[in-house]
Amino acid sequence: MNIQQEAHQMKLVAPKLANTTVAERNSALEAIGTALQKHRDEIFAANQEDLQRAKADGISEAVYKRLKFNEEKLAGVIAGISQLIELPDPIGAVQLHRQLDEGLIMKRISCPIGVIGVIFEARPDALVQISTLCIKSGNCAILKGGKETVNTNAVLFRVIEEAAVAAGLPKGCLLQATLHNEIDELLSCDKDVDLLIPRGSNAFVQYIMNHTRIPVMGHADGVCHIYVDAAADLQQALPILVDAKTQYTAACNAVETILVHRSVAAEFLPQLRDAMTSAGVHLRGTKDAMELMYATAGYPHEDVMVDEDFHREYLDLIASVKLVDSVEEAVNHINQYGSHHTDCILTKDDAAADYFMAMVDSAGVYRNISTRFADGFRYGFGAEVGISTSKLHARGPVGLEGLVTYKYEITGDGHIVGDYASGKKDFHFLDL
Amino acid sequence: MNIQQEAHQMKLVAPKLANTTVAERNSALEAIGTALQKHRDEIFAANQEDLQRAKADGISEAVYKRLKFNEEKLAGVIAGISQLIELPDPIGAVQLHRQLDEGLIMKRISCPIGVIGVIFEARPDALVQISTLCIKSGNCAILKGGKETVNTNAVLFRVIEEAAVAAGLPKGCLLQATLHNEIDELLSCDKDVDLLIPRGSNAFVQYIMNHTRIPVMGHADGVCHIYVDAAADLQQALPILVDAKTQYTAACNAVETILVHRSVAAEFLPQLRDAMTSAGVHLRGTKDAMELMYATAGYPHEDVMVDEDFHREYLDLIASVKLVDSVEEAVNHINQYGSHHTDCILTKDDAAADYFMAMVDSAGVYRNISTRFADGFRYGFGAEVGISTSKLHARGPVGLEGLVTYKYEITGDGHIVGDYASGKKDFHFLDL
Repeated sequence: MNIQQEAHQMKLVAPKLANTTVAERNSALEAIGTALQKHRDEIFAANQEDLQRAKADGISEAVYKRLKFNEEKLAGVIAGISQLIELPDPIGAVQLHRQLDEGLIMKRISCPIGVIGVIFEARPDALVQISTLCIKSGNCAILKGGKETVNTNAVLFRVIEEAAVAAGLPKGCLLQATLHNEIDELLSCDKDVDLLIPRGSNAFVQYIMNHTRIPVMGHADGVCHIYVDAAADLQQALPILVDAKTQYTAACNAVETILVHRSVAAEFLPQLRDAMTSAGVHLRGTKDAMELMYATAGYPHEDVMVDEDFHREYLDLIASVKLVDSVEEAVNHINQYGSHHTDCILTKDDAAADYFMAMVDSAGVYRNISTRFADGFRYGFGAEVGISTSKLHARGPVGLEGLVTYKYEITGDGHIVGDYASGKKDFHFLDL
Repeated sequence: MNIQQEAHQMKLVAPKLANTTVAERNSALEAIGTALQKHRDEIFAANQEDLQRAKADGISEAVYKRLKFNEEKLAGVIAGISQLIELPDPIGAVQLHRQLDEGLIMKRISCPIGVIGVIFEARPDALVQISTLCIKSGNCAILKGGKETVNTNAVLFRVIEEAAVAAGLPKGCLLQATLHNEIDELLSCDKDVDLLIPRGSNAFVQYIMNHTRIPVMGHADGVCHIYVDAAADLQQALPILVDAKTQYTAACNAVETILVHRSVAAEFLPQLRDAMTSAGVHLRGTKDAMELMYATAGYPHEDVMVDEDFHREYLDLIASVKLVDSVEEAVNHINQYGSHHTDCILTKDDAAADYFMAMVDSAGVYRNISTRFADGFRYGFGAEVGISTSKLHARGPVGLEGLVTYKYEITGDGHIVGDYASGKKDFHFLDL
């Protein structure tokens, strides 16, 4: 079977998985944890193969660390599964219970989305996290991992799928896509796949968004800003900015653009330059910002930025600096050049903070903290499938709640609309 | 300015409208109601022009009724505005309030989606409903109505926009697109328009969905089913089926396919034939169903249906009939050939009903009532912008709740992620 046929089959399995009890889904999760422990040597051996090939291909140290699946990573994903078991059932919740009229009762009940396609980067732990989040939320999943971890993924997927089915979940509720051309096949399954979650580079996510009619949840860009207000605590600002840029530079929630109020620029920018230089960060900026940070001849011409340059997401030890005259200008810059991900104001002025947090149109608006806090674990969601910059459905870090939808159930006894249209009957809405 | 430029301007106005108080938005709604009353003669005169041209073009009686904007329709939209004013503010609600750690406080707050493009059919009352729903929910709106009501829409829009701005809402929060080519321009505004709501024919909505990267909320198809179970009350079934087919035949929630359990088919189908024939409904079906309804020679060959024909949405006085052997087969048929809109089981058997309602993957699952109940007003939502068959964001009838999203606000005092990564600090999640 090709992916289209498999997805069509899965669509018919989805209601069966959706109607398992939370006890059944939790026992499957328990069984998966046990099976991962039991097959540890096989998993590690497969991972060694991937690592050796990756080394031969000359990959970077950072990527090597992500590919590695060792004792510590195994313990991490098993701890994650235990946490997931503890979380309340996201499906079957009665969100609305209303009498529409005598004998006509409506309930709105949370239910799984159905069939979710997840395309993720070369991180074996991502496969475990994503498949277990989908199981807990009653969603069928088609998983496509990065080619660099093909051996590790093959073993992990087999162990997880076998354990889940042996524990009683319907056969066919999990599927692994292994070939790169299967991504394009998956993108064409808009009749059977309800949601795509792509994770990876900006260009990759953009490609997915441009080539499918399936709804996509995630983000392409992470152009996050920190605005240093006139009333900022400048000493507190320095460690926040360094953390936001360097604590995990390749993350989408790392800061890319630093906006500084002109009234504190002369005092603050030399300090920022020193702190950032010590942390290995290269600063670029508008001409007036560069003049305050460096002597006139102290910076290369190509580091002088104009407005159009401020869309840049570096994902590297580089940051953009711009001076602004007011919190209003900062907000306008962020709404125009940002990616609506996470943006922060540093200030002791409540009025400025309130204005900023109300007016910035982003999934996360922060005050006096690092942008790196934008993460499902740090929000207390247990785990996340990704971070969404969309306005619809889930926004920000997406945990179990973002993997469910709802349906309206209405029960009556021969009720017809004609009686209400003719005035013979009237609605009497009453929340129960 | 063209639509792209106007949409870009509107994107910058959106945070201003989002931060108006509910009192300000409600006074704007009051002012709109008053202005519509004041300009009634002008509105009716413009509508007469549209009606005369439409008559000259030879439109059908049904369309003429929709185009007409008279005393009664005006009273209807003004009553709708009064109801909208009474509804609670959908924005600014604190959905989550959590301490992440000492001094690190997160709130999730509902907020408007931003800029919404609505493309709607030739119904002047739709312009009033949609613009006032957007105002109440703090969303900027770009409105494009059907060309048949261009004169009525022009006056209605001017009256509404002037009243809203005079009442204090930011200038530029409402925009009317009048030219047909502006639809394609609007579809290209994916940087500035957050959501599109198209209403109209299946082909039109499909065109919109295929030609934009902006998220689309709505439905193309409404292939709704009623399944007559072995344990159905057959006398109750007849008026339900007639209502579901004929009460408003052109509506998306009208029934298109009737599934009948084989064990009651011989008794029920002749009764169904008589009831439907009296109501002017033409029945088509699988060969075995046709044999039970008509003598062998009593129906044209082209009315005999095979499985692939069951995707049809007639929007007319025609219905499809199919026999099934079980509730399982009915569910499989609906999940495969339906449009996930609204589907109903008629039965006195609780187990069959529970199975059906759990397993059918549709926005609305009903028992013993007409499918025509699928409507925002009948659900007690006050009004609706449309009905969504998407799994994401809003599903089913979409009222104010479907027009908002949320943002995460976090406030701290110099908190950095490095301290949590190094183990110097730990998260202590506490819902407040």
